[in-house]
Amino acid sequence: MSPTHLQTARSQSKVDSAAIEKLLRGPEQLALRNKVLPVLANDPIFDKTRKPFLNHAQGIIDSLKVCKRLLELRDQHNWTREEYVMALLSLEETVPLAMSENAFMTVIDSQGSPEQKAHWLPRCRSYEIIGCYAQTEIAHGSNVQGLQTTARYDAQTKEFVINTPMAEDAKFWIGAMGVTANHALVQAILQVPDSFQPSGYRSVGPHLFIVPIRDQITHKPLPGITVGDIGPKAYGGFRVLDNGYLHLNSVRVPRDYMLMAHSKVSPNGEFQPAKHDKLSYGSMVYLRAGIPATQGWSLARAVTIAIRYCISRTQFSTSPGTPENSVIDYASTRHRLYPLLATSYAYIFAGKELLNSYYDMMDSLAKGDVSKLAEVHALSTALKTKSSWDCVAGMEEARKAMGGHGYSHLSGVAAIFAQQTPAQTFEGDNYVISQQIARALIKAVMLLKQHPQAPLPGSFSYLHQVLSPSPFTTSPDNWSNPSQQIQALQKCAAKIINDLAVVLAKNPRTPWTDLSWTSARLAAAHADIFVVDSFQKAVQAHGNPDLRKLGELYSLTTLVKAIPELVEAGVDTAGLRQAQEAAVGAISKEAAVGLTDAFGWLDWELPGVLGKKDGRIYEEMTRVVEEWDINKGEYGPQLREAALALTGHESAKTAKSKL
Amino acid sequence: MSPTHLQTARSQSKVDSAAIEKLLRGPEQLALRNKVLPVLANDPIFDKTRKPFLNHAQGIIDSLKVCKRLLELRDQHNWTREEYVMALLSLEETVPLAMSENAFMTVIDSQGSPEQKAHWLPRCRSYEIIGCYAQTEIAHGSNVQGLQTTARYDAQTKEFVINTPMAEDAKFWIGAMGVTANHALVQAILQVPDSFQPSGYRSVGPHLFIVPIRDQITHKPLPGITVGDIGPKAYGGFRVLDNGYLHLNSVRVPRDYMLMAHSKVSPNGEFQPAKHDKLSYGSMVYLRAGIPATQGWSLARAVTIAIRYCISRTQFSTSPGTPENSVIDYASTRHRLYPLLATSYAYIFAGKELLNSYYDMMDSLAKGDVSKLAEVHALSTALKTKSSWDCVAGMEEARKAMGGHGYSHLSGVAAIFAQQTPAQTFEGDNYVISQQIARALIKAVMLLKQHPQAPLPGSFSYLHQVLSPSPFTTSPDNWSNPSQQIQALQKCAAKIINDLAVVLAKNPRTPWTDLSWTSARLAAAHADIFVVDSFQKAVQAHGNPDLRKLGELYSLTTLVKAIPELVEAGVDTAGLRQAQEAAVGAISKEAAVGLTDAFGWLDWELPGVLGKKDGRIYEEMTRVVEEWDINKGEYGPQLREAALALTGHESAKTAKSKL
Ligand SMILES: Cc1cc2nc3c(=O)[nH]c(=O)nc-3n(C[C@H](O)[C@H](O)[C@H](O)COP(=O)(O)OP(=O)(O)OC[C@H]3O[C@@H](n4cnc5c(N)ncnc54)[C@H](O)[C@@H]3O)c2cc1C
Ligand SMILES: Cc1cc2nc3c(=O)[nH]c(=O)nc-3n(C[C@H](O)[C@H](O)[C@H](O)COP(=O)(O)OP(=O)(O)OC[C@H]3O[C@@H](n4cnc5c(N)ncnc54)[C@H](O)[C@@H]3O)c2cc1C
Repeated sequence: MSPTHLQTARSQSKVDSAAIEKLLRGPEQLALRNKVLPVLANDPIFDKTRKPFLNHAQGIIDSLKVCKRLLELRDQHNWTREEYVMALLSLEETVPLAMSENAFMTVIDSQGSPEQKAHWLPRCRSYEIIGCYAQTEIAHGSNVQGLQTTARYDAQTKEFVINTPMAEDAKFWIGAMGVTANHALVQAILQVPDSFQPSGYRSVGPHLFIVPIRDQITHKPLPGITVGDIGPKAYGGFRVLDNGYLHLNSVRVPRDYMLMAHSKVSPNGEFQPAKHDKLSYGSMVYLRAGIPATQGWSLARAVTIAIRYCISRTQFSTSPGTPENSVIDYASTRHRLYPLLATSYAYIFAGKELLNSYYDMMDSLAKGDVSKLAEVHALSTALKTKSSWDCVAGMEEARKAMGGHGYSHLSGVAAIFAQQTPAQTFEGDNYVISQQIARALIKAVMLLKQHPQAPLPGSFSYLHQVLSPSPFTTSPDNWSNPSQQIQALQKCAAKIINDLAVVLAKNPRTPWTDLSWTSARLAAAHADIFVVDSFQKAVQAHGNPDLRKLGELYSLTTLVKAIPELVEAGVDTAGLRQAQEAAVGAISKEAAVGLTDAFGWLDWELPGVLGKKDGRIYEEMTRVVEEWDINKGEYGPQLREAALALTGHESAKTAKSKL
Repeated sequence: MSPTHLQTARSQSKVDSAAIEKLLRGPEQLALRNKVLPVLANDPIFDKTRKPFLNHAQGIIDSLKVCKRLLELRDQHNWTREEYVMALLSLEETVPLAMSENAFMTVIDSQGSPEQKAHWLPRCRSYEIIGCYAQTEIAHGSNVQGLQTTARYDAQTKEFVINTPMAEDAKFWIGAMGVTANHALVQAILQVPDSFQPSGYRSVGPHLFIVPIRDQITHKPLPGITVGDIGPKAYGGFRVLDNGYLHLNSVRVPRDYMLMAHSKVSPNGEFQPAKHDKLSYGSMVYLRAGIPATQGWSLARAVTIAIRYCISRTQFSTSPGTPENSVIDYASTRHRLYPLLATSYAYIFAGKELLNSYYDMMDSLAKGDVSKLAEVHALSTALKTKSSWDCVAGMEEARKAMGGHGYSHLSGVAAIFAQQTPAQTFEGDNYVISQQIARALIKAVMLLKQHPQAPLPGSFSYLHQVLSPSPFTTSPDNWSNPSQQIQALQKCAAKIINDLAVVLAKNPRTPWTDLSWTSARLAAAHADIFVVDSFQKAVQAHGNPDLRKLGELYSLTTLVKAIPELVEAGVDTAGLRQAQEAAVGAISKEAAVGLTDAFGWLDWELPGVLGKKDGRIYEEMTRVVEEWDINKGEYGPQLREAALALTGHESAKTAKSKL
């Protein structure tokens, strides 16, 4: 067989893909991947091509079988916990068991007392208990204080009585609750006895309770519990997860089922609040801090598929009689895809750096030092927001760059988008949490006003600019200068903060919700500085020339998108777009192959077939399509009759009468 | 029952929704809708909520049943052709019969000889023949000249012999071919006898052939034909259409099965080309020209759902103890949704005006006058491109504005996005066809250079600016001036054309494909002028104050998005963003309800349940969810066992062994 276009381009690539892969993944992750992934890739139960044929219920049943197989493999191969978690994550779609690991166990770990952890976590690990995290209600999500589920302490029996009073207070959206979980961590407004209140109780805000919801032996709902699955999601996404709903009718749980690492209720019903009201932030910051890297890696899948396909795909020749061009040779295709390749790298690097800051902060917190919380909270929130905006939009763009076949489920990119788009909404809706960033930055600026010499954490240091802008002029020929790039982005963010400060100075009681649009712009600007900076650092540390070109493309693309903000901040943008176009042009298709190969994907990890590493796409498409049930005749007669029933032809009459 | 937030807002709205509806739809369409839609809305077979539960094959079978019911209703209610087509279109998703109507019949009508039309069209109308349009191949789409399917004329038998020589030459993506159609219009490279050629044949480019593919009595594939369904599409879109593939192995059709309105093959094999090489453009322009209005109306559905939901949805209160705010009250929600409302109106108006120009052009063409072709072709192409970009992106934004429930299939918006996103790809991929616009505009500029007084059609008239830019300064307080708005947009387009002209002047042989990125920017700029102008005209003609505000918001939003281009064109954009933010602020939620009510949607037309006109969303969500098969116990035991098999509990062992 003669080599494909993709193979030819690969053979001419000078990129050291192996070195870059090591850089991106690190030696530990590589070793884990090498051990675990081939096992999954070779097991037909993890084959992704047949999934789009399943309906909602079939999809969930299939997902439970996948989970079961995973547990068998874990035991068979004696996987460590890390290896098992790697296997769970490499499925990309969130299966029910992953919710028990991520949400249920993580929260117990961070908010449970030592005794509670000792009791519950081992049972979770053996899956005697399968858990889910139940905060959102049909009518309440973002506003946690407004939750309607109540947990009233009954000092007589030493139990909490938990209720979702009205139909619209039912828990909703809860991952793994639909059919899988037997326990739920329920957020409920805690009510403790208080004889001064007319009702005899006082509400002390939302707290977490472990509630058994299904019998461990029969798996049927326990008394007082109505539970079910909320059904299909947008775009066929989250098809392997049973998000569920839950009504609680006076369900009683023992006192020590309330998580009590921070606030506590004593046996006789006295409430003792947490010592520091932000101590419970840990797990929230952790979940947010993981999103940028996940987004980066997910976009990396999408863009690998799209770039490989667009090299394989040919269309039109430049002059009659010559072979057709790869569609990546067209200016527009390159301008659509290469910045996305750079974006995936950018969020992988920035995500790593963010997680490092998170671990730093946790170390400090453990020593009682809360000084890093504000910075890391703002950063994780800004990056969660911006990475999900940029990467998800990039996935749909990558899909479209593949033309017609991009719209086939065989492209695989739609599945990635469908899975990732809700990251803009969960773990805090992007527009809601942007206000937290804006508030933190404004607070820092106010502090600075009073104490101009106050030390600022690294990612806040540009705030000095807000109060005393330093002179800054750009040069059209100098856009590839890293310091010009960063300074220009800082000017943008500083300008937006300044605008906010002016509004708040005029009317200090302006509600933050009126500022939510501006806050979102600010979150983006704040994130951009950190992401561009992380990429620049990675490039400096490793000196790889291809990485340098990609980093430059990322900075310039970020700046081009920020042109409206730059103009308002008084930055002269002359030459910027041209510089970005030149940076696109500096990436060859051979380099693009090397830079996507550096992600190290197995074919199995890329859904669909168009991203296959050997570039033999049409053979594979034909093979897969001809094998589909609908073409193998399984539905043949039924479909034939249904079609025949439409025709005006005489012979259709019998078919019609049968339908 | 007390009124919902939505009902309260509606009762306080001063918008004359009925008058605006008349304006948007026109009296004929309103009458058609009133007659046809209630029939469908009351028939359970057209219920949309159960659809997301069907797998691929079930979805197609369901779709065929829907088609059958439509034909029964047509006969039962004695619908005229117009009424029947209204029913077909109001399903929103493209069902197989719609392909026969739109693609197959439209093309025969425009490219068939009078005898051919007389023979085929009545048979299509009675559905004795169900057709599809088969142009795209697995490996070829955009490049029609590069198609590999051949039709060789055999003068002996007076037949064409049609072949898809290799596996990758199979037709692919063909709507209604998967299981429904019994005939296909096949694009194939015509080969006519030519004794000067070594092969004895000469290729004369792509032509259209009617090819019977399934037996009309048994509906089984005819000899030499392999046909099947290409399977699921991205996002679960196009689930009710059986896009298919087709291999042809020396299939013979009679000579008069080639469409011969323009070029012809005589019985003895002489080829006679079309008189004017653009005469066959008619049906292509027609299909493109319909897209902007479809996009506008589709976005209108999405934005109606989102605005209604965001008024119903409350979250957070401004001060403790006060009721929670509707989420539309938050600045960011308004800034996300109101410009989209304006966008849907904009493309509805522009789409109307475009179709009028199209009918004008067809009248001229019928008189042999081709002068309007270039303008209408460029306009329809630019508007197809820009409307699909803007409206599809708007749909996903509208979905996200709904927070968590936006990601449920119950929001309905995902289904609209999934159906509309391929409009960016089919009827000519946006990036491919943008080059046609760029070419047309450059050609006009070149003409102008030679003949500065040459008359230009309306939408081209700003091209005078390219050669002799008129002085133009903006004022920050004057952004609501319609003439400042249009002039600024013209400056953008003129600047891009000028950049292109400079490149081409330097190297006249620059391939257009190198210019595809710039061409896409130009297509957008060219379209924007027309769309803003159409909205301004509609406002002037009707003087409705709410429409005026919305029109202003549209112009300003378009200008804000164009800031980078404006800056490059030397336009001072000071005050522009602020003007747009003020225009958002000028729309009240009461007006927004009135302006969405003006689309006149029946609840049935809006997929999902969150857009219900009465705003009683949670009751309806709860009702629908509890009725779903998975919760009504149909899969109960099977799901229970699969879940139980995961638990580490002893009792799980039996369940495990069964799975
Ligand atoms: C796939 C998926 C999985 C999930 N899994 C779980 C789970 O396992 N457990 C669980 O408890 N929950 C889960 N959720 C729920 C999720 O946490 C919430 O949907 C999310 O927090 C958003 O809240 P909401 O739906 O109430 O949105 P809302 O807050 O109602 O948002 C609606 C709109 O209002 C806007 N808005 C709201 N408040 C403000 C404000 N103050 N300022 C400006 N704008 C505002 C938002 O931007 C948005 O546009 C899941 C959701 C999804 C989509
Ligand atoms: C839902 C759906 C329904 C369809 N129904 C039918 C049908 O009924 N009958 C039928 O015949 N076909 C049908 N098609 C096929 C459709 O017409 C083609 O997919 C479409 O024309 C795009 O062509 P392509 O797939 O070859 O894309 P390609 O041309 O291969 O595009 C791939 C990428 O290359 C880029 N590209 C290609 N050429 C150039 C260039 N010269 N300059 C710059 N960039 C370029 C594109 O922008 C795109 O990013 C359907 C497709 C879809 C998605």
